Amino acid sequence: MIPQIPNERVPEVEVDAIFTDRWSPRAFSDEPLSEEQIATLFEAARWAPSCFNDQPWHFRYAVSSDDRARFSEALVEKNQQWAQHAPMLVFVLARKHFSKSEKPNRHAVFDAGAAWMSLALQARRLGLYAHGMAGFSVNKAAEVLNVSLDEYEIMAAVAVGRRDDPSKLSDDQRANEKPNGRKPSAEVAGEGSF
Amino acid sequence: MIPQIPNERVPEVEVDAIFTDRWSPRAFSDEPLSEEQIATLFEAARWAPSCFNDQPWHFRYAVSSDDRARFSEALVEKNQQWAQHAPMLVFVLARKHFSKSEKPNRHAVFDAGAAWMSLALQARRLGLYAHGMAGFSVNKAAEVLNVSLDEYEIMAAVAVGRRDDPSKLSDDQRANEKPNGRKPSAEVAGEGSF
Repeated sequence: MIPQIPNERVPEVEVDAIFTDRWSPRAFSDEPLSEEQIATLFEAARWAPSCFNDQPWHFRYAVSSDDRARFSEALVEKNQQWAQHAPMLVFVLARKHFSKSEKPNRHAVFDAGAAWMSLALQARRLGLYAHGMAGFSVNKAAEVLNVSLDEYEIMAAVAVGRRDDPSKLSDDQRANEKPNGRKPSAEVAGEGSF
Repeated sequence: MIPQIPNERVPEVEVDAIFTDRWSPRAFSDEPLSEEQIATLFEAARWAPSCFNDQPWHFRYAVSSDDRARFSEALVEKNQQWAQHAPMLVFVLARKHFSKSEKPNRHAVFDAGAAWMSLALQARRLGLYAHGMAGFSVNKAAEVLNVSLDEYEIMAAVAVGRRDDPSKLSDDQRANEKPNGRKPSAEVAGEGSF
């Protein structure tokens, strides 16, 4: 049995639980995802809004042992330790130019962030967790993905899977294996000008 | 009675309807939002994931007539035409440096995009719509918000409110008053390297 982890997040006002139920565990079971689960995650991302509906996001995913090992190499070691066990690793990319005009797309990274959020929320709907990582080498990821950094920004790595027993984690990782908190709303939203 | 608008989106695989039910109308009723609705929108955004949990997003919102008129001035005219009727306008900002270290945050814009997506999805949960806009002057918005572009990127303007009869729109806007489509999944997600 995988131990329950209490969710101690306290929303300031009532909000749909889909947002507070999403968090980023590190203890992943290596149980594979089904093809349908994988398709559903990217389906959710696909319906995100974007500037001129350009859909500048792109997802490359690894599920085979070989691909997961290759993708893992781009992660910093602290992330490799736990993320290598997840049944799927994903890199989230943003196309730097509009697909039609080839002009620079100022909103590409922002829109890719929206698509990533949808994927993370849909993961919870499937009983899965998606843990986004900034801790990776962009250059190494570009090499692994065989992609030009002139064409794409590589914005995040993501581990997706089911939770597992935190006992498999290192001491410091185990201590953080729970939903984290947030700044007060007053610090991130305000009426009128600054 | 506001006419029903059929949602002709066809997901490639089954996905939670929260994602396909979200779209970007232009015909907004000027009926005000409650303080609770407003707080709930930012509450959803607040729980988004971010690099080092830095929460680099910031939302400035206008609900009074004065603030809405001021915020509107930063929008391109085509957006002003319809967005001025929405009971709330929001600018989504991304803090360019980490709040603790003041080092540049490569993921600020990406994380702000994730927070914006949560806001847009929570809007639907409240029976509201959030329409994100790239069509605004960043410099004018910075002036209106009294914010330094060295400190923040201003990434999106958002109109939030209830749908209204599309008859109030211009002809070309009325023709587009429906959920739009997406590229095939195969174009935005793929296994392994490119």
